[in-house]
Amino acid sequence: MPLGSADEWLSLQTPALFRAALPFSFYSVRSRCRFLRTMTAPLSLGVLISGSGSNLQAIIDAIEREELTARIHVVISNRADAYGLTRAQQHGIPTVVIDHKEFSSREDFETALIQSLHAHQVELVVLAGFMRVLTPFFVRAFPQRIINIHPALLPAFPGTHAQRQALQYGVRIAGATVHFVDEEMDHGPIIAQAAVPVYPDDTEETLSARILAQEHRLYPHAIQLFAEGRMEIRGRTVVVHNESRAPHATLRVPDTTNGQKD
Amino acid sequence: MPLGSADEWLSLQTPALFRAALPFSFYSVRSRCRFLRTMTAPLSLGVLISGSGSNLQAIIDAIEREELTARIHVVISNRADAYGLTRAQQHGIPTVVIDHKEFSSREDFETALIQSLHAHQVELVVLAGFMRVLTPFFVRAFPQRIINIHPALLPAFPGTHAQRQALQYGVRIAGATVHFVDEEMDHGPIIAQAAVPVYPDDTEETLSARILAQEHRLYPHAIQLFAEGRMEIRGRTVVVHNESRAPHATLRVPDTTNGQKD
Repeated sequence: MPLGSADEWLSLQTPALFRAALPFSFYSVRSRCRFLRTMTAPLSLGVLISGSGSNLQAIIDAIEREELTARIHVVISNRADAYGLTRAQQHGIPTVVIDHKEFSSREDFETALIQSLHAHQVELVVLAGFMRVLTPFFVRAFPQRIINIHPALLPAFPGTHAQRQALQYGVRIAGATVHFVDEEMDHGPIIAQAAVPVYPDDTEETLSARILAQEHRLYPHAIQLFAEGRMEIRGRTVVVHNESRAPHATLRVPDTTNGQKD
Repeated sequence: MPLGSADEWLSLQTPALFRAALPFSFYSVRSRCRFLRTMTAPLSLGVLISGSGSNLQAIIDAIEREELTARIHVVISNRADAYGLTRAQQHGIPTVVIDHKEFSSREDFETALIQSLHAHQVELVVLAGFMRVLTPFFVRAFPQRIINIHPALLPAFPGTHAQRQALQYGVRIAGATVHFVDEEMDHGPIIAQAAVPVYPDDTEETLSARILAQEHRLYPHAIQLFAEGRMEIRGRTVVVHNESRAPHATLRVPDTTNGQKD
């Protein structure tokens, strides 16, 4: 049956009549989600970047198209020359540069990040091409409220140069993963994944571009699931409530029906 | 350009006029493939099973539909009660039982397998639910002529219970991989992969069934690429010649356009 286990799960807690009277998504937000939010206020984001910020742009665009119920309160870069800072300024978003080279320790650097994120009342920390490894000290400051996007179908190819690793391994399917950040690198609970084909003539550049196009669809979608309070972390898996009404909500695969590349 | 690097590769070797006069697939078979075969004779297969043999059935069906230019010369099982033996007999295919428990060493067991495969003039060894680990001794007897199918998107989730591993990890995309067998488990060069979604209410059984349906499409397709002499192993990657005319030849992903489960 389409509603499957989510519906059964619900039935443990409420009388049937009460359950029938409530829209499911509203009910799930009120009663069950780890991330209890009022549905009227947009989710406040802090986006951490180091470079061009194309995923930042995808998030800005999704907000402006009203597909993402969020507001970017601050964009923080560890590099003063990151083009993503210009993108943010063009859309009137506050920017902060916190240069890691100006701090004597990782903890001091991360303390500055945390203070800035708190000062901007950030609810969800979004890593978008942020090239500094974050320590458990930072992760514990935002428990289950930091997300990252990685250009591979995790757990395959964690770490740097994921696309190059995929080509060298010879996989036929590559992709992207949005996940919560935990204390291990590229390891936390998975929110959403996208698959792309690998073609015989692919280079690191062409494969990266194909994956990036999916990242730009996937990341705003995953943030919206968070904004709607629909995600629940159980162990290392993420349950997306009400997903059964849109079973492909967390899956993005290329359309193979026309046989064309991209 | 659609023909991409394959065409450039070709241009190093032949004058343009000669190249233009030859059908590309014919040319690639004659001149470049590691597995030079005449195109008229069907590829002779030896299929190794331990159980129900549903992938064996998919191969039999593809041959009977004339989608696979091959003939199964022998089905070998290490278990006398494997239902796949019945399937083979129903289609007039010779069967052999070689019970590993009757041999004092792995090498003796594998020697018996090798002798039987040679006696049946097998060109390609197809592992289809064969539950014995094969040692380098066996692998070296059929260099680059043993293929396996694994119910995961390798390199993720090698080993046993791949579907359970995928559910426990919480991935959103699972799949199947056909690969050449090398001396490491679930590791050799990848021929083809198929992706399937993981749904929130999936059990090991429902996910396994969804992957298996893709295996049944993927395995005959991969064997046909071998039969056509279109595969070349370079390092640990498999180049499928002429693939650019059908870029999704080695990719199978679920159709997501209708929003339905399966």
